[in-house]
Amino acid sequence: MSAQTLTCRAAIAWGPGQPLSIETVEVDPPKAGEVRIRIVATGVCHTDAFTLSGEDPEGIFPAILGHEGGGIVESVGEGVTSVAVGDHVIPLYTPECGECKFCQSGKTNLCQKIRATQGKGLMPDGTSRFRCNGETIYHYMGCSTFSEYTVLPEIALAKVNPKAPLEEICLLGCGVTTGMGAVVNTAKVEPGASVAVFGLGGIGLSAIIGAVMAGASRILAIDINDSKFELARQLGATDCINPKEHDGPIQDLIVDMTDGGVDYSFECIGNVDVMRSALECCHKGWGESVIIGVAGAGQEISTRPFQLVTGRVWRGTAFGGVKGRSELPDYVERYLAGEFKLNDFITHTMALDEINHAFDLMHEGKSIRSVIHY
Amino acid sequence: MSAQTLTCRAAIAWGPGQPLSIETVEVDPPKAGEVRIRIVATGVCHTDAFTLSGEDPEGIFPAILGHEGGGIVESVGEGVTSVAVGDHVIPLYTPECGECKFCQSGKTNLCQKIRATQGKGLMPDGTSRFRCNGETIYHYMGCSTFSEYTVLPEIALAKVNPKAPLEEICLLGCGVTTGMGAVVNTAKVEPGASVAVFGLGGIGLSAIIGAVMAGASRILAIDINDSKFELARQLGATDCINPKEHDGPIQDLIVDMTDGGVDYSFECIGNVDVMRSALECCHKGWGESVIIGVAGAGQEISTRPFQLVTGRVWRGTAFGGVKGRSELPDYVERYLAGEFKLNDFITHTMALDEINHAFDLMHEGKSIRSVIHY
Repeated sequence: MSAQTLTCRAAIAWGPGQPLSIETVEVDPPKAGEVRIRIVATGVCHTDAFTLSGEDPEGIFPAILGHEGGGIVESVGEGVTSVAVGDHVIPLYTPECGECKFCQSGKTNLCQKIRATQGKGLMPDGTSRFRCNGETIYHYMGCSTFSEYTVLPEIALAKVNPKAPLEEICLLGCGVTTGMGAVVNTAKVEPGASVAVFGLGGIGLSAIIGAVMAGASRILAIDINDSKFELARQLGATDCINPKEHDGPIQDLIVDMTDGGVDYSFECIGNVDVMRSALECCHKGWGESVIIGVAGAGQEISTRPFQLVTGRVWRGTAFGGVKGRSELPDYVERYLAGEFKLNDFITHTMALDEINHAFDLMHEGKSIRSVIHY
Repeated sequence: MSAQTLTCRAAIAWGPGQPLSIETVEVDPPKAGEVRIRIVATGVCHTDAFTLSGEDPEGIFPAILGHEGGGIVESVGEGVTSVAVGDHVIPLYTPECGECKFCQSGKTNLCQKIRATQGKGLMPDGTSRFRCNGETIYHYMGCSTFSEYTVLPEIALAKVNPKAPLEEICLLGCGVTTGMGAVVNTAKVEPGASVAVFGLGGIGLSAIIGAVMAGASRILAIDINDSKFELARQLGATDCINPKEHDGPIQDLIVDMTDGGVDYSFECIGNVDVMRSALECCHKGWGESVIIGVAGAGQEISTRPFQLVTGRVWRGTAFGGVKGRSELPDYVERYLAGEFKLNDFITHTMALDEINHAFDLMHEGKSIRSVIHY
């Protein structure tokens, strides 16, 4: 029997700047190549807040936000072969079709197969699977995990080991993988290297974990909030620096502290001035800086070209350069093997009803991650 | 018998903006670890003109300019073992000591062993080997090839095959190696890749040769002067583009022409706006842009960080990333093997007396390289 439309609860963003509203929504069955999943847990990420604020120029409303989830396949559409009912999956806002020019290049994780429709809040066929009181509700980042049920294309699901608790590994759907992957996949930090991490939110802390996994000999953690340092040290930071306690450009201090600069740096905030500091604290000749944070619309990075001519490299990363279907399951295995922990990141758990509180905690700097349990 | 001070002719830059003056200079014998060489030929490069103009904030006067030479060892100081009298050598403004942190890193050619004194126009012991009428004359870029004789540290000499004509391979002392090396060493362009080269002076044309050697499938040559295109095509450019003939940003045109952008781009001018175009014409996901040109003091590059977050890489190179002593001799061998020609670059040859004419030709855009024959 083929799947039918079902109803469930979801948090709807009706417009920019408004609190989310818990509503009953209709979720259509998966079409060909699509999968409907029951979300078990979802993290609440700064990117959700960015879009909800109205600052995201690509934000579309009304929509069901959320993109850091873990779930179980409820039904599959025609032709779906890679996952089956009951499989545990992580939704991917960066899919992996394996066929497009990007996937075929072997050089990037930025599959472009469904980018156009995803950017419009729609499934690949140009329609939505969500309705509320007859009104179309848009998808968000191709995921919409702030709903008990959601529909994704098969190519946007990583099938993972069911032994891993979805309430924790949902964080691998965005922030943790982004930070760890930036270090391990994008920068390919080698044992003994020195690393600077700017911004100690979930991504920055994940970058620290990645640096420890990579065998970095020195890990500088930089934040303007001293309260972040305890966990940073616990995770492996060797030096914690508060730029407010120092005069002059922070990059000069770091260059002095590290005999010429760090081998790798990571910007985990989205602040273009910090991006410059992160580049310029790198060692002449070989230092590489990776931009992870997302800057506001229209903002630009700058530096003197001499910084690059003398051997520094400026790059960026999305989802840590990790290919969701072929590489993310291995991150789950490494988690299960005890290589890193996830519960350090989970400062709050709550029910869907309380989701606006999760946004408040984030805005107040009081949480690393709140995880919604359905 | 140890070497004595000798006198010879040299072109002296007495001050910024002044024509060079041909004078008789005294050249001291090489001290320990130093080598005195007879310059056989030298190219005249834009960097010489940049310093002579007074725009170079690090310019020191009076000095003997010139850094693209070929010569023969005349005498060696105490302890010199890697070269002997009669050896053919190319002076290196980027030395290779093999011992400093930079050389030991294996990641860069930017040896820093003698940087401090070189930047002050002095030999490593803090003194000059040049005098004119009793006045100290400074070294330039550690080379000072606009003199019949000059003195360099042993670590700043590449010993090359004496079968190669110094009147041609002197160009490997700067421009040609810089352009070819940027493609082959720094970017490591792979067969089949697409390449855009901005600016068709000596370095840009050398980058085209490098792209051909690397097996690039498409080579876009960009210049605002149509007269550069004939030679560019002859060397291997597949498409020549004059931005003046197109409305809108040139990067948009290139992205359209190449189904999403080029795999690699090279800025060979020193114009910060062009550096931005060069980055932004690169393919999303993997395109890499290499800055070769040297911008004016205080100028900055800018772009939206989204360009990097979506997979483009911004880097730079000096002397093409080529290690002078261990790698440059191989470039000479490849030249001797016929892999590339150098006489395409030599538009004028002249005597030292005519050196100011070489600067005039360069300023008027009428030469690629003038080579001075002593």
